[in-house]
Amino acid sequence: MDWRTVDLTNCPVTKALDVIGQRWTLLLLREAFNGVRRFDDLCEHLDVPRASLARRLRELTEAGLFERVPYRDEGARERHEYRPTAMAWGLYPVLVGLMQWGDTWFNDGEPPLRLVERSTGEPVRAAVVAGRVEELAPTSVRWEAGPSFHTIEERRRAPRKRAATAQLGAG
Amino acid sequence: MDWRTVDLTNCPVTKALDVIGQRWTLLLLREAFNGVRRFDDLCEHLDVPRASLARRLRELTEAGLFERVPYRDEGARERHEYRPTAMAWGLYPVLVGLMQWGDTWFNDGEPPLRLVERSTGEPVRAAVVAGRVEELAPTSVRWEAGPSFHTIEERRRAPRKRAATAQLGAG
Repeated sequence: MDWRTVDLTNCPVTKALDVIGQRWTLLLLREAFNGVRRFDDLCEHLDVPRASLARRLRELTEAGLFERVPYRDEGARERHEYRPTAMAWGLYPVLVGLMQWGDTWFNDGEPPLRLVERSTGEPVRAAVVAGRVEELAPTSVRWEAGPSFHTIEERRRAPRKRAATAQLGAG
Repeated sequence: MDWRTVDLTNCPVTKALDVIGQRWTLLLLREAFNGVRRFDDLCEHLDVPRASLARRLRELTEAGLFERVPYRDEGARERHEYRPTAMAWGLYPVLVGLMQWGDTWFNDGEPPLRLVERSTGEPVRAAVVAGRVEELAPTSVRWEAGPSFHTIEERRRAPRKRAATAQLGAG
């Protein structure tokens, strides 16, 4: 059948993008999947203004991607963390797929992180498959540092070095 | 290692979303993957203004996702079609992942289309895998109509019927 005749009003890709089509949605999921779920931690790691982050988290909670769960550190007032729901974890293959695509086309085969199977250490990838194929749950996957890995601390030191060299070169 | 200390400046997910983070990018890829590659066909099937479509196609061609190839129908002037590149096909698992997520959460298990392996007819899915797993190339996958499938023609007739019923109900 000719694809041009196919009605697109109930297209699942369109519906998916209606919810997660904005850039920051998948970045928030990346954080939450990696255990960063508290407002202050998200704010700092994503370097995003508090008001925008609050609005985004509220929208995604309403959409069903996050569950807002109260917690209280000793001596502090009650706060909330944002736990990814089953609906959110359904996007795990999409996030892994974006990660490998980004590494292939923009990181020159020198990824900052590698995903490996927790039990075997074998490289993990997102793939299109059929039939009886063992699918890895997110809990069976861990990341390890790749060739271009940096902590924030390391990165903060590095640009200064490069800036100094550039200045020397220009002088 | 604590994810909060990980530097995100070379994160492949961020880099991927810098290119495909806008909703329409994946919708254009959906069309191109299904063989709709000519400007007029894209314009009509996506129901998008010509100027926006031209801009989007130019941006994605510059980004390396489409190759602009001239063609000429008999008696007509030269036109162009937009062929997805290897870089674009690298997003195939992401698109399949979005499709199954959209069907799971927004189409009530009644998908408009199903993807099946061309040779066996087995259902196809996007998955996170490791080791020796047979990965399907896009050419090994075809779609078939699912329970909520409509052609555009069928959809055009359907709402009128429903509207008529609603009017009767209200009267």
